[in-house]
Amino acid sequence: MAEYIESLRLLAERFGRLEGVGKKTAMRMAFSVLAFDEEEAQAFAKAILDAHEKIHLCPICQNLTDREICSICADEERDHSVICVLSDPRAVMAMEKVREFRGVYHVLHGLISPMNGMTPEKLKIRELLSRVDEEGVEEVIVATNPTVEGEATAMYLSKLLKPLGVRVTRLAYGVPVGAELEYADEVTLFRAIEGRRDV
Amino acid sequence: MAEYIESLRLLAERFGRLEGVGKKTAMRMAFSVLAFDEEEAQAFAKAILDAHEKIHLCPICQNLTDREICSICADEERDHSVICVLSDPRAVMAMEKVREFRGVYHVLHGLISPMNGMTPEKLKIRELLSRVDEEGVEEVIVATNPTVEGEATAMYLSKLLKPLGVRVTRLAYGVPVGAELEYADEVTLFRAIEGRRDV
Repeated sequence: MAEYIESLRLLAERFGRLEGVGKKTAMRMAFSVLAFDEEEAQAFAKAILDAHEKIHLCPICQNLTDREICSICADEERDHSVICVLSDPRAVMAMEKVREFRGVYHVLHGLISPMNGMTPEKLKIRELLSRVDEEGVEEVIVATNPTVEGEATAMYLSKLLKPLGVRVTRLAYGVPVGAELEYADEVTLFRAIEGRRDV
Repeated sequence: MAEYIESLRLLAERFGRLEGVGKKTAMRMAFSVLAFDEEEAQAFAKAILDAHEKIHLCPICQNLTDREICSICADEERDHSVICVLSDPRAVMAMEKVREFRGVYHVLHGLISPMNGMTPEKLKIRELLSRVDEEGVEEVIVATNPTVEGEATAMYLSKLLKPLGVRVTRLAYGVPVGAELEYADEVTLFRAIEGRRDV
């Protein structure tokens, strides 16, 4: 039936291009849109265009923003001498939820992965180096994911950063809080034992 | 962070209004949109407006269509003497996938459920009765869901339809093909035994 309703098929196809949305979900979403009233549908379309038009990268930290400089970089109460390096804007969102980190960020927009054509030149590494060079940065926390790509990127960055006289750190590895030991993988357990602390 | 990026928050909020989309999924989708190029974002917004503008109810079967009369009602090769009554357009889509049914449809747009304020007057029942009255219909298959609401609606319809001299049927109950007996619920098993056939 959807094949006969051209505009419904086209809409479902658009939803299907979103990350993690399969065919069935896309069709369910298209139906949802039909249930919207006129005003809601207009607002939805406008939100897509608005977000696309207004959001760009912060010239300092390369995170997404709709202001000239992002609200974190513009915040004078944050500690600009500590930069936390993350792979993407979603990681920034996760870190900000913790409300623990009071430094600033730098978003790489990817991780080094030669297999997928992600070479260091495609990441925002040059921007990071010039920040560290110019801004009186004392510490760079390389908080890329604890995956093969994340580790490779961290190694690569630390080799570039250390000669600049800055402290380079990495997040602690260990057992996730609330998790059961028997389900932790061996590498995580090994790292947790290696990083054990006195209580 | 998203709280600071107003247009990203607004877009995620719009996605969150789609059926079955939670907060996290909505945010992931909003990020997906940012990864689109200009042309794709425009096409997405247009698809929403187009679908909303062009799609309406078929004046005969009340199913969704972007033509004057839907392609099923307009198809002369289909059997217009058999009407399959369904709760919503998605059920039509499921039925059409089977390619078994060659009759036509009638979409109620809901099921009777007084608890949720769905009274018979809110469904497309009047339209169904006038079709049966006028069109030389011989059989009405009430294929509403095998739920409390679906059954109540089927009972209600059959009481209205039978006096019009039309055959009223219901889909067979039984164990789903490919399912394991031990996981079938008791009511389904009871119905399956009740409806057993010679082999």
